[in-house]
Amino acid sequence: MSGAPGIERFSLNQITTEQWTLPEAIEGCARHGVGWLAVWRHKLHEYGLKEAKEHIRDAGLSLSSLCRGGMFPAASQQERLQRIEDNRRAIDEAAELGANVLVLVCGPAAGKDLVEARKHVQAGIEAIVPYAEQCGIKLGIEPLHPMYAADRSVINTLRQANDVAETIGTNQVGVIVDAFHVWWDPELDQQIERAGQHILGFHVSDWNVPITDMFKGRSLMGDGVIDLKNMRRLVEQAGYKGPIEVEIMNQSLWNLSGDEAMAKIIERFDAHV
Amino acid sequence: MSGAPGIERFSLNQITTEQWTLPEAIEGCARHGVGWLAVWRHKLHEYGLKEAKEHIRDAGLSLSSLCRGGMFPAASQQERLQRIEDNRRAIDEAAELGANVLVLVCGPAAGKDLVEARKHVQAGIEAIVPYAEQCGIKLGIEPLHPMYAADRSVINTLRQANDVAETIGTNQVGVIVDAFHVWWDPELDQQIERAGQHILGFHVSDWNVPITDMFKGRSLMGDGVIDLKNMRRLVEQAGYKGPIEVEIMNQSLWNLSGDEAMAKIIERFDAHV
Repeated sequence: MSGAPGIERFSLNQITTEQWTLPEAIEGCARHGVGWLAVWRHKLHEYGLKEAKEHIRDAGLSLSSLCRGGMFPAASQQERLQRIEDNRRAIDEAAELGANVLVLVCGPAAGKDLVEARKHVQAGIEAIVPYAEQCGIKLGIEPLHPMYAADRSVINTLRQANDVAETIGTNQVGVIVDAFHVWWDPELDQQIERAGQHILGFHVSDWNVPITDMFKGRSLMGDGVIDLKNMRRLVEQAGYKGPIEVEIMNQSLWNLSGDEAMAKIIERFDAHV
Repeated sequence: MSGAPGIERFSLNQITTEQWTLPEAIEGCARHGVGWLAVWRHKLHEYGLKEAKEHIRDAGLSLSSLCRGGMFPAASQQERLQRIEDNRRAIDEAAELGANVLVLVCGPAAGKDLVEARKHVQAGIEAIVPYAEQCGIKLGIEPLHPMYAADRSVINTLRQANDVAETIGTNQVGVIVDAFHVWWDPELDQQIERAGQHILGFHVSDWNVPITDMFKGRSLMGDGVIDLKNMRRLVEQAGYKGPIEVEIMNQSLWNLSGDEAMAKIIERFDAHV
């Protein structure tokens, strides 16, 4: 497997092998010739920050991102300040691990007011920018598919993410292009071009009909309707040359052994991305 | 029920009472003091066009729309021409029934090329405009939520629908604002304002988390996160004063008797729209 062409751009987003603990994922990457990993914080906390850092270093892995900060909107200012504090801890963890990018899943509205919630997102990001700058961590705003607007993120298009990033106006803040979230967007080409050097990550999976589970509904690359090669071309034309995370929440994939899952996604990455 | 305030704007979109045949829905509207109905073509074909026309007239009902035309993209030109023919039949049916608006659900791409599919949509609408004009039927482009981009419609935002309508540039073509499809949109206010006099319909339901079924996942008004009163204010400010269709695909609602369902949705309409 380690000789698979293009494998040097491949990164395992850890949720794809939910069946693995973090140490298992680290070993799995090493075993499959994968040089990049994206770590989720709940898995990191299970293992321990120091242990993870040493293990990742000893395995010779690089981190494409830490997932995730964000979740800024909340009903009270006290809660919003707590969220900002949690984002600072996430920045600390990213810095300690040597991940350059913290992915921001920006959070849903506390009530029905999306305009207000979107202001909280912008204020939240602005509040953590100085600390991110000090720690050398880039903040990647990830627009989530509009079907997550009620429960996960009020940032739902790349245009919005670009707007927020441009308004904040620092190189510390950019955007994440996740194929599953943005493939449908009629402005995809223009907004990827606009994002340009501010693209901080590119995530792949696929959209297959029917989607039977809102969260675990993603498919293996090649099983759905997304033109991933075209999207890769767009992000590369815009200037992104970094790791490409495979991020698939899918129960069938989680029912396999981690090694079977890894073999499958590497094969699909080679064929369809 | 017939004295419920605001009932004069209420229209029953027939899919909301899927348990009723068309004659049952016509009788049901009359019984509940509802003056408007939106008819679905498969129910119409079951009953017969002449029978439906007479029954609707005798019951004193007006039609807010006929649902639906559209489905323009297809792999071959022959298929696309067949779709256009079917849209002409839909226009005939609308004219015969006295529905002024044909709702266009524009259809998914045949393959992975959304740009091409969106061109087919525009070409399809352009092809039927002269006949619609001749028959006095307005064509309402309904943007569908981006979660239907793969299987129902490549028109996914109000901006897109407005773009297509403006490009075609005739009063015969406008847009439908369905709350379930557009509530998440960061450009909602501006795009409703832009649509202005071209708004040909306003549909209500609600979005409740979790969505457990992509098609039948809609909720009763008041059970979800959509600020329907605000959206009604926006469409009315833009100039829309027509009927408001309640369009809810929901298995629990379909499990009730039609009369129980009607009583519930009228109550919720009064309270939340």
